[in-house]
Amino acid sequence: MSLVALLYGKDRPGLVAEVSKWILQNSGNIIHADQHCDFQAEFFFQRVVWECPIDNKPIIGKNFSAFAKNTLGMEVNVYDTNNPLRVAIMVSKTDHCFHDLVLRFKSKELGGDLISVISNHQNLSAVSSKYELPYYFFPVTKENKREAEIKLAKHLRSHRIDLLVLARYMQVLSINFLEDWGKPVINIHHSFLPAFAGGKPYHQAYQRGVKIIGATAHYVTEELDAGPIIQQDVTRINHRHPISDLIRRGKDLEKIVLSQAVRWHLEHRILTY
Amino acid sequence: MSLVALLYGKDRPGLVAEVSKWILQNSGNIIHADQHCDFQAEFFFQRVVWECPIDNKPIIGKNFSAFAKNTLGMEVNVYDTNNPLRVAIMVSKTDHCFHDLVLRFKSKELGGDLISVISNHQNLSAVSSKYELPYYFFPVTKENKREAEIKLAKHLRSHRIDLLVLARYMQVLSINFLEDWGKPVINIHHSFLPAFAGGKPYHQAYQRGVKIIGATAHYVTEELDAGPIIQQDVTRINHRHPISDLIRRGKDLEKIVLSQAVRWHLEHRILTY
Amino acid sequence: MSLVALLYGKDRPGLVAEVSKWILQNSGNIIHADQHCDFQAEFFFQRVVWECPIDNKPIIGKNFSAFAKNTLGMEVNVYDTNNPLRVAIMVSKTDHCFHDLVLRFKSKELGGDLISVISNHQNLSAVSSKYELPYYFFPVTKENKREAEIKLAKHLRSHRIDLLVLARYMQVLSINFLEDWGKPVINIHHSFLPAFAGGKPYHQAYQRGVKIIGATAHYVTEELDAGPIIQQDVTRINHRHPISDLIRRGKDLEKIVLSQAVRWHLEHRILTY
Amino acid sequence: MSLVALLYGKDRPGLVAEVSKWILQNSGNIIHADQHCDFQAEFFFQRVVWECPIDNKPIIGKNFSAFAKNTLGMEVNVYDTNNPLRVAIMVSKTDHCFHDLVLRFKSKELGGDLISVISNHQNLSAVSSKYELPYYFFPVTKENKREAEIKLAKHLRSHRIDLLVLARYMQVLSINFLEDWGKPVINIHHSFLPAFAGGKPYHQAYQRGVKIIGATAHYVTEELDAGPIIQQDVTRINHRHPISDLIRRGKDLEKIVLSQAVRWHLEHRILTY
Repeated sequence: MSLVALLYGKDRPGLVAEVSKWILQNSGNIIHADQHCDFQAEFFFQRVVWECPIDNKPIIGKNFSAFAKNTLGMEVNVYDTNNPLRVAIMVSKTDHCFHDLVLRFKSKELGGDLISVISNHQNLSAVSSKYELPYYFFPVTKENKREAEIKLAKHLRSHRIDLLVLARYMQVLSINFLEDWGKPVINIHHSFLPAFAGGKPYHQAYQRGVKIIGATAHYVTEELDAGPIIQQDVTRINHRHPISDLIRRGKDLEKIVLSQAVRWHLEHRILTY
Repeated sequence: MSLVALLYGKDRPGLVAEVSKWILQNSGNIIHADQHCDFQAEFFFQRVVWECPIDNKPIIGKNFSAFAKNTLGMEVNVYDTNNPLRVAIMVSKTDHCFHDLVLRFKSKELGGDLISVISNHQNLSAVSSKYELPYYFFPVTKENKREAEIKLAKHLRSHRIDLLVLARYMQVLSINFLEDWGKPVINIHHSFLPAFAGGKPYHQAYQRGVKIIGATAHYVTEELDAGPIIQQDVTRINHRHPISDLIRRGKDLEKIVLSQAVRWHLEHRILTY
Repeated sequence: MSLVALLYGKDRPGLVAEVSKWILQNSGNIIHADQHCDFQAEFFFQRVVWECPIDNKPIIGKNFSAFAKNTLGMEVNVYDTNNPLRVAIMVSKTDHCFHDLVLRFKSKELGGDLISVISNHQNLSAVSSKYELPYYFFPVTKENKREAEIKLAKHLRSHRIDLLVLARYMQVLSINFLEDWGKPVINIHHSFLPAFAGGKPYHQAYQRGVKIIGATAHYVTEELDAGPIIQQDVTRINHRHPISDLIRRGKDLEKIVLSQAVRWHLEHRILTY
Repeated sequence: MSLVALLYGKDRPGLVAEVSKWILQNSGNIIHADQHCDFQAEFFFQRVVWECPIDNKPIIGKNFSAFAKNTLGMEVNVYDTNNPLRVAIMVSKTDHCFHDLVLRFKSKELGGDLISVISNHQNLSAVSSKYELPYYFFPVTKENKREAEIKLAKHLRSHRIDLLVLARYMQVLSINFLEDWGKPVINIHHSFLPAFAGGKPYHQAYQRGVKIIGATAHYVTEELDAGPIIQQDVTRINHRHPISDLIRRGKDLEKIVLSQAVRWHLEHRILTY
């Protein structure tokens, strides 16, 4: 149907005019445009969506990229909404985010193609079959981790995966893997106000009398749990909620937050720099 | 510092390009632009903020209006952020929204000039003096209502008021007044999920076991409480909260919601059509 | 493990003492007790949970009921947490609440037994099979409605169902059926601030600029959508969210709110009077 | 009107029965009772409110304390709701929490007596006069800190202050002062999901793309910002909110959260152990 471009670069007068003029002159009709200026950083960001004649889309996308880079000096990515991203979900044993994502893909709520499920355990293999989803088992041990990650990256490339979603995958992906594969990885983790260092955060939060628990979906970068935040949400608790309640409500948060982050990514709504 | 234009009209290709080109050609630098397309209604909305040479602002604003109307066929309003809107607050006896708004104006959180307090009662006269705010007493009875509203409209015009904020003013403004005065009026009222017809809504909500109460700030139109919504917020309650708690929390919501609505209006962020 | 009693009746001094004394004298250990007094209505409510010797539980429950009724003059229901309630889910074509509830029952998050799925359509039959859940098809037409409801009540009785959950079941259950069956029915419906009469509420809410949408789970009574509220929740929206977003977020709310209401009912946490 | 007791201690069967029996036998009528059991810690907590003959209240309170300590082996505090707590507010230069608290005391929303304002600066002296509140100036420098705190504790004692509220007081109170004075101190601070170490948290949160900011009210203990949490709340933000918006919304949160924490403390609703 349409093209989506995400641009960013140093701000200067006239950028909005030049972008929209170019699109107009190339038979496009802008149906959505958001721009944002970070005045501290003097940075310009734009997400622009336009309709254009179907038969010319690949060329127009390519030409727009060239125009944005060469004429405007911007970083740019152009996506064709007719080519949905290919997604793999990574899981371990926990299944709440897994079911939630699969059902949302099946009901067409998420604008991408769910290609496969990848796991370091066999637990969710049978239920993946019921969903008619290919299930790939990549066991990871201390000894084989580097090797397993090399295989994984190869597997992802050969299946042309565009996005990896860690749906409570309980292994840390190494910086080597992230660089090797080079495509985005989205993770979900719980969070608290204030944060607690160390293990058993739900137990620590309970002891301290925490009133609010949260979940954060973010891109995975080399620094653990410190990548750009995509989405967050919270829920109120009180001293009457036993720890089992905190954990259950944490799961509901994780489902909502992770699925929103994945949806935004698949709709090319996230621009990080 | 800058000009703000709010435009809307029938959508067609190239609108964004034409607006930004015009601003660029008239020495402007767009610092913020939001456009939104209602595809059902084929309507285009834009809020654009740009910096331009100070000495030419009035002319540029005028010229832009002419361009938007004549060349683009859009409805348009242009505001100069150096000319803050002049605001009057109307109150009766209740003072929580009154104090909240006055303190926010005094701390420069609200980008307008608070000119006066108008009331159908004398209750808040003394405290207005402490705030060094002019207080105008317009008593309203069944008999004098029409007359009182004519005086009020005249008063507002002679003080060049741009916005009237009903901070728990307990009289309904007639459609005659609204047409006579012709400028925006913002009101706040509480609301419930689901809504309750009839009096004592807090008591009805309590009986039914309502879990969420809310407040809604909206423009006043001839249909009571049915004008365009500017802002809403809610808070959770439960059966342990006595009615006094519901009322107290309703007040906090009203303060937050009304002040946000006023702030957005004063920053020319609200476009209704 | 334990007994749960829900009591209510006219308040008078000493009720808490008498209840806890009785339990203590009958070898019980109170592990949770909540009482609430509606001072306007002079009504006393209590939920009390206690552990007692397993072999005596049926007798103790019976004796407690007699004590509460005869000595205290209270209405009372006593539940044995070892006898989970038997639940049937009613669906039509929409499946988001259906999947959500089934998965929560399967993960033991909901403290009852999911016995069957009942529907006026065949759409969710195949997926119920995958979940290994019996699926009963009760077609309803204008002509056969009364007859179908009689069959349904008979079916529910013969399967000893304790709770009927309407998971987006798109037929109104008649007052005749409700009286005939005589056990609780929980329904979910969306709601808005303010409420909108008539059809297409999402479209009306969008037009009016509504900022908050909600969902409400309630017991079904003869008055449509006016039964006692069990749980509610809301989410913020804005003018940038197209109607499709409102509908999607409404679904997420419905899942969360309905499952919480069902969970509380199954844990005997809801006392209505 | 009534007595409020906060009890806690090792759990054992019959505690609820014994407490309510004692109150009944001493002519009391329980109007509210909440108990909570921490099963991990095997700890019992109770807040019980009862009406009793006015002329006997001091004796009954004393006797109940003795009973709870000696017979039940519980820690206990008993409060007479006719003797409101005496409160001092400490401020520096920032005034949003100051105005908010003062106005809530004046409108009788907070069930205590506001005695005085104490500050290390002169900035809020004039406005305190308008509110007819005594203002005490306690300048603090690196050199005189210990001495100033000794004077402060003496001042609080001589004015029989029961609660100190730090309404954005920008000095850390030393552990020496806390032990010397020995009464509760409530503080408010902002918080983020996730938390950020170091200065300028709003700027760090903005860089990272934080979606939720919060505020936490807690009792002050020797470990900075790590005392028991009384209340928390959050608000959603997005990348379109400039830092000035984050700060403004943070202030609104601080007002709501601090005032709720103070209210709960004054109503003897907080039990820490």
